[in-house]
Amino acid sequence: MSQLIALARCGSCARSALAPVAAHQRTGSLLVAGGAAASRRLCGVRWLSRHGVRKFGLGDAFCTGLLVGGAVLIGVTAAGVGLTRQRAVMAAERWHGGVERDQQARDEILRKCKHFMSDPVTDINQLLENKEDMRTKMELLILDVQADVCKALAEVDGGQTFKVDRWHRKEGGGGISCVLQDGKVFEKAGVNVSVVFGNLSEEAAKQMRSRGKSLKSKDGQLPFCAMGVSSVIHPKNPHIPTIHFNYRYFEIEEADGQKSWWFGGGTDLTPTYLNKDDAIHFHKTLKEACDKHDKSYYPTFKKWCDDYFVIKHRGERRGVGGIFFDDLDSPSAEQLFKFVRSCAKAVVPCYIPIVQKHLHDTYTAEEKAWQQLRRGRYVEFNLVYDRGTKFGLATPGSRIESILMSLPLTARWEYMHNPAKGTREAEIMEILRNPKDWVH
Amino acid sequence: MSQLIALARCGSCARSALAPVAAHQRTGSLLVAGGAAASRRLCGVRWLSRHGVRKFGLGDAFCTGLLVGGAVLIGVTAAGVGLTRQRAVMAAERWHGGVERDQQARDEILRKCKHFMSDPVTDINQLLENKEDMRTKMELLILDVQADVCKALAEVDGGQTFKVDRWHRKEGGGGISCVLQDGKVFEKAGVNVSVVFGNLSEEAAKQMRSRGKSLKSKDGQLPFCAMGVSSVIHPKNPHIPTIHFNYRYFEIEEADGQKSWWFGGGTDLTPTYLNKDDAIHFHKTLKEACDKHDKSYYPTFKKWCDDYFVIKHRGERRGVGGIFFDDLDSPSAEQLFKFVRSCAKAVVPCYIPIVQKHLHDTYTAEEKAWQQLRRGRYVEFNLVYDRGTKFGLATPGSRIESILMSLPLTARWEYMHNPAKGTREAEIMEILRNPKDWVH
Repeated sequence: MSQLIALARCGSCARSALAPVAAHQRTGSLLVAGGAAASRRLCGVRWLSRHGVRKFGLGDAFCTGLLVGGAVLIGVTAAGVGLTRQRAVMAAERWHGGVERDQQARDEILRKCKHFMSDPVTDINQLLENKEDMRTKMELLILDVQADVCKALAEVDGGQTFKVDRWHRKEGGGGISCVLQDGKVFEKAGVNVSVVFGNLSEEAAKQMRSRGKSLKSKDGQLPFCAMGVSSVIHPKNPHIPTIHFNYRYFEIEEADGQKSWWFGGGTDLTPTYLNKDDAIHFHKTLKEACDKHDKSYYPTFKKWCDDYFVIKHRGERRGVGGIFFDDLDSPSAEQLFKFVRSCAKAVVPCYIPIVQKHLHDTYTAEEKAWQQLRRGRYVEFNLVYDRGTKFGLATPGSRIESILMSLPLTARWEYMHNPAKGTREAEIMEILRNPKDWVH
Repeated sequence: MSQLIALARCGSCARSALAPVAAHQRTGSLLVAGGAAASRRLCGVRWLSRHGVRKFGLGDAFCTGLLVGGAVLIGVTAAGVGLTRQRAVMAAERWHGGVERDQQARDEILRKCKHFMSDPVTDINQLLENKEDMRTKMELLILDVQADVCKALAEVDGGQTFKVDRWHRKEGGGGISCVLQDGKVFEKAGVNVSVVFGNLSEEAAKQMRSRGKSLKSKDGQLPFCAMGVSSVIHPKNPHIPTIHFNYRYFEIEEADGQKSWWFGGGTDLTPTYLNKDDAIHFHKTLKEACDKHDKSYYPTFKKWCDDYFVIKHRGERRGVGGIFFDDLDSPSAEQLFKFVRSCAKAVVPCYIPIVQKHLHDTYTAEEKAWQQLRRGRYVEFNLVYDRGTKFGLATPGSRIESILMSLPLTARWEYMHNPAKGTREAEIMEILRNPKDWVH
């Protein structure tokens, strides 16, 4: 086995240092330190190998944003196949050295890459060569959002570090899962990126679209590409709400060579106790992101969110709402990309101020127990109704750990637990049964 | 509202006492005390009303053994509709006073009723009138088993009491849910009986049968009756395994008046840590129950159990096995009833000796954490794969609390938790991945 060296690099000051990583070899994971003292600590640790080149395969299967077939963790195997991002960047810089006209765009991509939690899933040269493609733009966006959110969370947590796992999918593509578990502030925080491609059956392609459009294939196969960032953050303090977000992009090539594409996504909030100011701040931030693009988006997507995140057998919603949309393919990919970017970039301003506001709120054992019961409901929604989770679990070869990182660290189910009238527990239940429009 | 009186009766000494039950009115629940000091405490508390007669409606829906449709809790509403079992028994005794020829059989039924956790779901007069019907025999059996198991568990627990909820289903029938929660020994123990009837669509009837037989209806409706006892027991100590059992009987009347019927059921064990002696005792007791009826039953139903309780996305079984069967309709209803009775009656000797053996086993925080992770897997199986749970959750008007009483009080999900080789955690995982035949 090649000797592993970790290139420890501080995201804030860009200083790097090489260090042996024997301690990480057993888990096959990367640790990214964060916290209040980020500038004095390591914000990024990368795998390096002295031999080999990382390769991704091609094949046929599907991803829903979280998801995906034939996943193999490659953190631990990087020793044999690793090509560092830094080396790739250097090679790419040489290869593109003579090209002057788009130097600025290339520099921008390379600058972005330095911010990411790990190398892009797609080879950097391929991204640079196809920098105007929507696939490239979206991959860079989801990696950027992953890094933004992870760094913001790690800084607020100030305790545990993010575990960064790269995995690849033998049928094509792969992903980067970042999980912070049992921290000072967060019980479990997962931010996952996946970029998968290959071939889909007509039936599978139809299932992927919320409107169930059928697509014409050549020989029953449809070349596809699916990518997204997906995240669930469960805090410890019951006065800090859980947040979920997911932004995704799909492309399918039909028999006549025509490309079918669409965007989906959303951000939603699940508080244990209702705090109206938090709910208003959250929805207002989302509304501002939406309104920049189309005044009809916010009311439409708020309603879609309330209609989607329903625990049907309980007759209640999972949380207080947010926005949700799927299968968007007009007015144009470029305009929708800008809209999705606004939404994804709104995650940190939506959520982090709420976390900071309640960071030092005290809570009782009863409040913690109520949070645990609500966590149980979260599990019920995710395992029984969530389309992405259901599809992922039913897809052979899926990376289950990435799909189920959305489940809380702990949950509770009590028989016949009904909050008494007039309590704060009954107050949130009322909102979950009758969703409210928090901003107009 | 009529004044409610609880008739407190000790199961051991048969002494009764009337007492006001204002304290219970808010929850609408009945409390059944148990434990080591049972003879000095109340073993049964029944709702009485000075007015009214309890009535069940008729309609069309379905039950899978645990459950279901249009369930309404009637503990609290008993004031308006209650006729006590004691009064029903007295009335039935008068009505049947002149009939001498089957006095013995009637006495046997009435004697059995005194043992139950609550009145039968079906009116006692109706049971006495149709005492040779399989429906009557099965209802009396499942109520008997419910009482056996609840009393044995309460005695072992010696702490918490069983909460007994009667519920009725407006479309026909009802049930009795008994739940002991947060006891000294048991984290959560639920034993549920349901007896439901009405009309089914051809499609729903087909779904009910594991072999998917189609049935011919008159005007698209099939009169049906479904009943069963279903239970999941989650102990606190990680060295005491979780047990699940379910025994059920179905009847459907086809267009030509012919009655189609079948039995289903099983008992399976889910330990946190492998104890070979426990697994052998458990399977041996089940094998003995099976062998009395047909030597092929045990090996067939052990395999069926290993094939059914699979968490597919994890590639592991839920537990170490047991027996499972469905859709049995030969050689005869009478013979199968006797077989099912043997299995159901084997639950206490299967399980209670294992509980008693490990009652005082000490355990570490790590062992408790591993138990909680395994509880998470239990939740995954029940919400994602269990046919009864899935059908129940998808049926509008189901009594969700009875369906989901199978979920543990607490559960845990850790990202990328993999037990190290050679540990006791790895030992049980090996068995869950490669099921073993514990007795030959």
